[in-house]
Amino acid sequence: MKASKRSNDIVASPIRGLTKNADAAIARGLTVYKLNIGQPDLQAPKEKLDALKDVDPKHLAYSPTRGFPFFIDAVYDYYRHHDLPVEKNEIFGTTGGSEGILFAVMLAVDPGDEILLPEPFYSNYLGFTGMAGAKVIPITTKIEEKYHLPPREKIETLITSRTKAILFTDPGNPTGTIYTEAEVEMLVDIAIKHDLWLIADEAYREFCYDGHRHTSALEFEKGWDRTIVIDSFSKRFSLCGARIGALISKNPKVRDIFDKMAVNRLSPPSLGQIVAARAIGSLDDYFAGIQREYKQRRDLATRIFESIPGALASKPDGAFFFMLRLPVADSYDFSRWLLDEFSIEGATTSLTPAKGFYETPGLGLDEVRIAYVLPVRELELALTIVKEGVREYKWAKREVQIDPCVTQRRIRTRK
Amino acid sequence: MKASKRSNDIVASPIRGLTKNADAAIARGLTVYKLNIGQPDLQAPKEKLDALKDVDPKHLAYSPTRGFPFFIDAVYDYYRHHDLPVEKNEIFGTTGGSEGILFAVMLAVDPGDEILLPEPFYSNYLGFTGMAGAKVIPITTKIEEKYHLPPREKIETLITSRTKAILFTDPGNPTGTIYTEAEVEMLVDIAIKHDLWLIADEAYREFCYDGHRHTSALEFEKGWDRTIVIDSFSKRFSLCGARIGALISKNPKVRDIFDKMAVNRLSPPSLGQIVAARAIGSLDDYFAGIQREYKQRRDLATRIFESIPGALASKPDGAFFFMLRLPVADSYDFSRWLLDEFSIEGATTSLTPAKGFYETPGLGLDEVRIAYVLPVRELELALTIVKEGVREYKWAKREVQIDPCVTQRRIRTRK
Repeated sequence: MKASKRSNDIVASPIRGLTKNADAAIARGLTVYKLNIGQPDLQAPKEKLDALKDVDPKHLAYSPTRGFPFFIDAVYDYYRHHDLPVEKNEIFGTTGGSEGILFAVMLAVDPGDEILLPEPFYSNYLGFTGMAGAKVIPITTKIEEKYHLPPREKIETLITSRTKAILFTDPGNPTGTIYTEAEVEMLVDIAIKHDLWLIADEAYREFCYDGHRHTSALEFEKGWDRTIVIDSFSKRFSLCGARIGALISKNPKVRDIFDKMAVNRLSPPSLGQIVAARAIGSLDDYFAGIQREYKQRRDLATRIFESIPGALASKPDGAFFFMLRLPVADSYDFSRWLLDEFSIEGATTSLTPAKGFYETPGLGLDEVRIAYVLPVRELELALTIVKEGVREYKWAKREVQIDPCVTQRRIRTRK
Repeated sequence: MKASKRSNDIVASPIRGLTKNADAAIARGLTVYKLNIGQPDLQAPKEKLDALKDVDPKHLAYSPTRGFPFFIDAVYDYYRHHDLPVEKNEIFGTTGGSEGILFAVMLAVDPGDEILLPEPFYSNYLGFTGMAGAKVIPITTKIEEKYHLPPREKIETLITSRTKAILFTDPGNPTGTIYTEAEVEMLVDIAIKHDLWLIADEAYREFCYDGHRHTSALEFEKGWDRTIVIDSFSKRFSLCGARIGALISKNPKVRDIFDKMAVNRLSPPSLGQIVAARAIGSLDDYFAGIQREYKQRRDLATRIFESIPGALASKPDGAFFFMLRLPVADSYDFSRWLLDEFSIEGATTSLTPAKGFYETPGLGLDEVRIAYVLPVRELELALTIVKEGVREYKWAKREVQIDPCVTQRRIRTRK
């Protein structure tokens, strides 16, 4: 009665890794600003939830395997709205983006096969590659280059006879980086040349700032047969718990396989389909407001991070994540310490240590991810706690000798 | 860019295999009685859906990995109500029963390992064992024995060094069979002796008739460390589309692994948690009515089936499925023919050919499953169509020479 080998290979997400510490801090009476989970605070407009007021009980039945027709129609309209070439019969409703990742990875690899994945990456991918028995081969990207891709030759040296797919997130999580059109086309070209699947997680498509434009993998017709797009509507519309996403393929053979996988789990969540279809109807107004708000937060975060001595921040162009290199040796220990031993005026901040976003040992040890999912005023407090925390931590750890009294705020350090 | 080997190994569910034929029949103007999908028609009481009227937008956020505390509390109450020994920290909310199956199978096996599975079985299991790369070893059960288990010695001959788990559904789908206490204990004992996981799918726990009692695998403390129970609340409460189930383990090491798997997909559907928690609150009244209704349908189906010359029905004690051996050589062709070429008074019936419920080649070819998920009046029409269809089909196929005019009803056969 030994658990499978894969059970051990599956890596727990680092994103919720300090949940117990955060809960303990809350139990001690602290306010904990949670910047560790990419859960948008911008609530879905109340009128979206009105869709639930008169749920037709028949919509609590199983939907068709790919989703209710009204949902498929809404998703189709969504892609039309973005001028993306997606037909109705190319759309699969999924249980969040997560299920799309599971299906795509299961389609692409057998145990022992390899998947190329730019690092730092969305760490939850490892749960699905672990289930599939795939080996993740990281394409290392660097904070100094704002996590853009290395040259094509460098990526191609990573390809072996076992390489079956390139998986990437664009706009990036945890990086917030938006690949240029040339970068996306390079990935398409590499996939074509080496006969690989190209799995593009585009859940943050609309989260672009400063006029940056997102390039969808679907824009390159030459790659259509091998391109699989993962999408999430629950994330996009701040309806995370509704767990509703989509999986797109223009290759009928791929769709046959997804149909076989999908039919076994019967249907995506019906209620999620209802609220997502309603949300898609009010697309433009929604994102204009969202983009303004997130840009403001990002700019605030940038200002604060740039004032932390020794820190390096990669000001992101998209999504709602920030990667930050801190002047500490062990960002996990720092994040734990913030929750366990530090607070300012009854509050502390929960970060995600970045080690889990890297496959290469030794990388990311001094980096953290923050999700800027709090209103500006709270975000400022949360990030000030990080800034002051760095100073205090370095003193507490004797990494530097500074007098903690220089800070004007009341700092309480638990002994 | 070849799809993985596992993509080919994954078997599509036979339950929706004739969907296109049914859709075509509907397009031709026919009423199609769908007895092929185990989707209860008994609608969730309207007041359960009232839970959705004032959804707190914060419940559209991700829930904790295992579910919202209010949902875990409700599930805990549910097991208390059934006198089953389940503690709050042993409960995982899942996306329907399906996700529980995925997690349990992924925990139990590595590629090439074997899982014992009584056949006929819920065919969708094959999608998950296929993803896991597991080999299904059938424990054959027979309609003549009402699909009860063979003796222990016979089961033990199937066990090899690669056998890692026994997976079973009780009450059974597609059989409706309820194992005796002695049968469940035998499975527990076999699992203990051979050090196997015991995965019990108990989604139909309350669907028991004629005073039959369901025995949960959880009732045997000696097997607790290896027992994993799969449950579904959406199915139980006719809320199939809400996709909400539970996974139970009393083994902390197992729970650690499920936590790792579950955290990667973030959370079970929030709205499903809301309606399921509400539904659990009105347990008793609900099932008293349900049991009466299903028993009536089962008795009706039994009467009709017993009047089909040459047919053999396994009158089920539980769930809402009926297995039926028909006097035809190929029940798939018969089921297809019913949809494509047969109708009575503008209506026909959709069945599930049973071949897909068997792993052993050649078994189930003359059997079908029906789910008695229609009100009595419609069920009677639907089953009369099957009965008359058998007669007409055998004539059309020249399996027997009878005069189709003997039937008094207007039968239309498409040429």
